[in-house]
Amino acid sequence: MGEASTVVADYLRGLAAANPDVVEFDQQRRIVVRRAAARPGKVGLISGGGSGCEPLHAGYVGLGMLDAACPGEVFTSPVPNQIMAATESADHGAGVLYIIKNFGGEVMNFGLAAEILRRKGIRIEKVLVNDDASFPPALEGRRRGLGATVLVEKIAGAAAEEGRSLDEVAAIARRVVGHSRTFGVALSSCTHPKTGRRTFELPDGEYEVGVGIGGDRGQERRPLPPVDEIADVLLEKVSAELGLQAGNRVLVLLSGLGSTPSIELHGLFAAVRDRLLKLGADPIRSLVGNYITSLDSHGALLTVLKLDDDMLELWDRPVHTPSLRWGV
Amino acid sequence: MGEASTVVADYLRGLAAANPDVVEFDQQRRIVVRRAAARPGKVGLISGGGSGCEPLHAGYVGLGMLDAACPGEVFTSPVPNQIMAATESADHGAGVLYIIKNFGGEVMNFGLAAEILRRKGIRIEKVLVNDDASFPPALEGRRRGLGATVLVEKIAGAAAEEGRSLDEVAAIARRVVGHSRTFGVALSSCTHPKTGRRTFELPDGEYEVGVGIGGDRGQERRPLPPVDEIADVLLEKVSAELGLQAGNRVLVLLSGLGSTPSIELHGLFAAVRDRLLKLGADPIRSLVGNYITSLDSHGALLTVLKLDDDMLELWDRPVHTPSLRWGV
Repeated sequence: MGEASTVVADYLRGLAAANPDVVEFDQQRRIVVRRAAARPGKVGLISGGGSGCEPLHAGYVGLGMLDAACPGEVFTSPVPNQIMAATESADHGAGVLYIIKNFGGEVMNFGLAAEILRRKGIRIEKVLVNDDASFPPALEGRRRGLGATVLVEKIAGAAAEEGRSLDEVAAIARRVVGHSRTFGVALSSCTHPKTGRRTFELPDGEYEVGVGIGGDRGQERRPLPPVDEIADVLLEKVSAELGLQAGNRVLVLLSGLGSTPSIELHGLFAAVRDRLLKLGADPIRSLVGNYITSLDSHGALLTVLKLDDDMLELWDRPVHTPSLRWGV
Repeated sequence: MGEASTVVADYLRGLAAANPDVVEFDQQRRIVVRRAAARPGKVGLISGGGSGCEPLHAGYVGLGMLDAACPGEVFTSPVPNQIMAATESADHGAGVLYIIKNFGGEVMNFGLAAEILRRKGIRIEKVLVNDDASFPPALEGRRRGLGATVLVEKIAGAAAEEGRSLDEVAAIARRVVGHSRTFGVALSSCTHPKTGRRTFELPDGEYEVGVGIGGDRGQERRPLPPVDEIADVLLEKVSAELGLQAGNRVLVLLSGLGSTPSIELHGLFAAVRDRLLKLGADPIRSLVGNYITSLDSHGALLTVLKLDDDMLELWDRPVHTPSLRWGV
């Protein structure tokens, strides 16, 4: 549904209309900004990326998360002009943090925008999100920014709301990335709204292991196992890289990729949680639903964050965005 | 993903584990109950229906909505024993309201449970939700309970939380049903988790008009028009039956059916809202997302509620359930 050429603008117009007290869509500059005035001197947070991964990022603009988001076309990075506009709107005098997922176009365009605006005197820090455990550590450059993006936006957003400095907000953002890992699987690709075609074909009874959020294939294709084995596959690398062990308090984000039925996603969550409990880990906070997606892909991304006291406290702070809300 | 025979129990176990402060799953009696103790003397609210329409109903158990939900198997009504167990857990001495969607099995089994428990002295009122505008008023008996169910659960839930009597809570619930209409369209059927098969086939470029939430076909199949015409189709009967006119304040619920991409659903919302504004109506509250679904169907249900002051005030009250939360 939707004219191909206006699909992103129509989405943003609808998002703002459905959440008029929370966000505003600046159609001219193609950015989404928070409605509630931020405290003067608050560090600004912005992010942006290819559309198709909703609610990233526009759905996370608001109190306690992002000040502005710059959405690109479907699976396409935002352009530097959008990023600069978002930066200017988010700059309240204490500098701006860029939350950048490790995709080539985003890294390049956020980098360009930062270079230009720093010369104009705006303080900018960048955090690179690369929680993707589907590539081995030796291929760190290929590790994409996945579910940890949501956690960084929430936790760093709360730190900024509290009044921490740019360096402090950047530090907690980097700590969240360092303590998060994500692994994903998919039972289908997605339908690109501009072509109406699937981005790849997957035979019945097989699934892709190690997928991201751009509609591209994963690392490997395997016969589809029962749900318990999918939980094992999701946790294996995540758990090993984080060195999960008894007593660790963790935050679990299990996101559907867009068309995963809620009953299925929650069943998978139950299996993942059983395994965490068996390890002796304590899944003290959980988020299960469509929090980072890939249009209408069928699949799931598991993100685990090893929590410390500061992260947990910031996670629990009030948040009011179109897609995440509590305490207010 | 998931063993066919345990798919609903696994879902409920996962839902409770992901929301441990909000709901509890009683595996023995197959009901989901709210965790926070209700005030003694509060009217109890329960609902239930075939699974596959998540977050209905278990996702709406909690403060300010339902006291308990009894989920049936996929697209299958709960059995009387579940309904009786839910009633007993929700009875705090002031009686229990049954919120019943107009599907044959639900009407029958909730009716049976009410008959048995009234003889035991529990006060029970029933509200029948039949907001489906895809059947003409003359076929009222066939009008299904659709999106208005969510609105009734929220608004009547707030009235019960406030301390209103069973008769008063039932009255506002009936007023919400009477002032709501829903119309739905689908671009695909859904995949039944027990068979792995689509419930019907729909050729590319066509869509079903007048669908519900049970994976069944709609009233009519038509060539797929541009999004603006879909908005017209969704609004036509809803608007006519409600007699929408300038000055009406309305609540708009636009729910995806499970696999509708967020960008698409919000684009459709923008088009629907434009039409409401053109009529002079004021869409003062909106909810856009997966609030009543049909597994992984691709499509949308539009529900419009003509608000009065009381409904609006109750709508805005705090709510804390797995799938609807604000003010707390």
